Amino acid sequence: MSVRTEGSVRPESPPFAAVYADVQQFYARHMHLLDAGAADEWAATFTEDGVFAPPSAPEPIRGRASLAAGVRESFAKLTAAGEVHRHLLSMVAVEPRPDGSLLVRSYAQVIATPRDGAARLHLMCVCEDVLVREDGELRVRERRVTRDDRPDLQPASGGDRRADAR
Amino acid sequence: MSVRTEGSVRPESPPFAAVYADVQQFYARHMHLLDAGAADEWAATFTEDGVFAPPSAPEPIRGRASLAAGVRESFAKLTAAGEVHRHLLSMVAVEPRPDGSLLVRSYAQVIATPRDGAARLHLMCVCEDVLVREDGELRVRERRVTRDDRPDLQPASGGDRRADAR
Amino acid sequence: MSVRTEGSVRPESPPFAAVYADVQQFYARHMHLLDAGAADEWAATFTEDGVFAPPSAPEPIRGRASLAAGVRESFAKLTAAGEVHRHLLSMVAVEPRPDGSLLVRSYAQVIATPRDGAARLHLMCVCEDVLVREDGELRVRERRVTRDDRPDLQPASGGDRRADAR
Repeated sequence: MSVRTEGSVRPESPPFAAVYADVQQFYARHMHLLDAGAADEWAATFTEDGVFAPPSAPEPIRGRASLAAGVRESFAKLTAAGEVHRHLLSMVAVEPRPDGSLLVRSYAQVIATPRDGAARLHLMCVCEDVLVREDGELRVRERRVTRDDRPDLQPASGGDRRADAR
Repeated sequence: MSVRTEGSVRPESPPFAAVYADVQQFYARHMHLLDAGAADEWAATFTEDGVFAPPSAPEPIRGRASLAAGVRESFAKLTAAGEVHRHLLSMVAVEPRPDGSLLVRSYAQVIATPRDGAARLHLMCVCEDVLVREDGELRVRERRVTRDDRPDLQPASGGDRRADAR
Repeated sequence: MSVRTEGSVRPESPPFAAVYADVQQFYARHMHLLDAGAADEWAATFTEDGVFAPPSAPEPIRGRASLAAGVRESFAKLTAAGEVHRHLLSMVAVEPRPDGSLLVRSYAQVIATPRDGAARLHLMCVCEDVLVREDGELRVRERRVTRDDRPDLQPASGGDRRADAR
């Protein structure tokens, strides 16, 4: 039996399948919290100084307090409007890096459903995250999101990501 | 090298990655059967006394015969209308429980495509399942689905699920 | 502790979870390349003589040069029209076969977003692939795609796939 190099990323690192399953589970919970308006619990899935660079903000959002405040505000508006948003990540590509962090690129659909109305595809985005493990838990250290409808809006750079990600 | 606690759920249980892959594979086949109108094969992916609490039914659907009858009827209507439905689960969060069952929460899109017409997002739902393993195969013991457009429709409770699932 | 038969496909084969994670990672990168118009890199994720039988072509597309040419042409048209396409695979069912190849059936959404316009679900398809491993990397040896809106269009058969796939 030959050694499978695809399945492991470093000799001392966990198998790729373990990493990949953890990442998928992480995103599922992360988005369930976001869409439920659980602002503080969602912010806790970022590192303490985590950065989120959304497409339309002039400056990245930094730190859990600011991240939670943003969700609280957005969720209150949606609730007042009687609309539910769901964030669906797909086509998740995970690239383990030498420092143990994970560079994750995925597609993000935002689905909006008004009360008694038809669900619609609200936004199609690309999400690039740097995930790190703290106390055994995955957390977002940095997130950069671009919108397919507004390729002119490039989020302010938040850190050390590679420039050539597709 | 430290012991990874994230990757395993109980000392004697399979690694989380194995569980997670099995769950994803299970849902893929389960939805392929449903969308193909393979009513009996689909019903066989529930336990014998499996329960499905859809959002709009006054009573949960219980048992494979009733589950299959429901699919047969729905599929005949869709076929007569020249429409194909696809059920897409995403953001799958799997919580192994002490009794060996799995509590699974996911988002479910129903995509409808009429013959020669445009595909549309028909429904956006949340799906909460209790999965169990019988003869080595995962099966649905209980399913509860809510619709984003009708938060007022809360399905009849089917069993022992936690009340605080988001 | 009992032996889990679900998790392994052959005594000498890698665990199913490793296969499943590799397949998901493969598709993520594969679609990122396609949607970025990286024609040659995308074509390199097929085998040298890889076959793609799309729903509307009279003949399957054979070989990397032809596959890359097709993407180059499509991407140029989309760019000229100011539109971005994203290919999202979901409900991925992986069936390892005795020869080591993988029969993979999935749903494929094509999401189209015009510049400054609303994202829309452009097409809903079913994708049936035969994947093989070459030099440790997964590659598509054969792909057959059907469109939900045009069940009359059955792609020309490309090879050895089973006829009864749903």
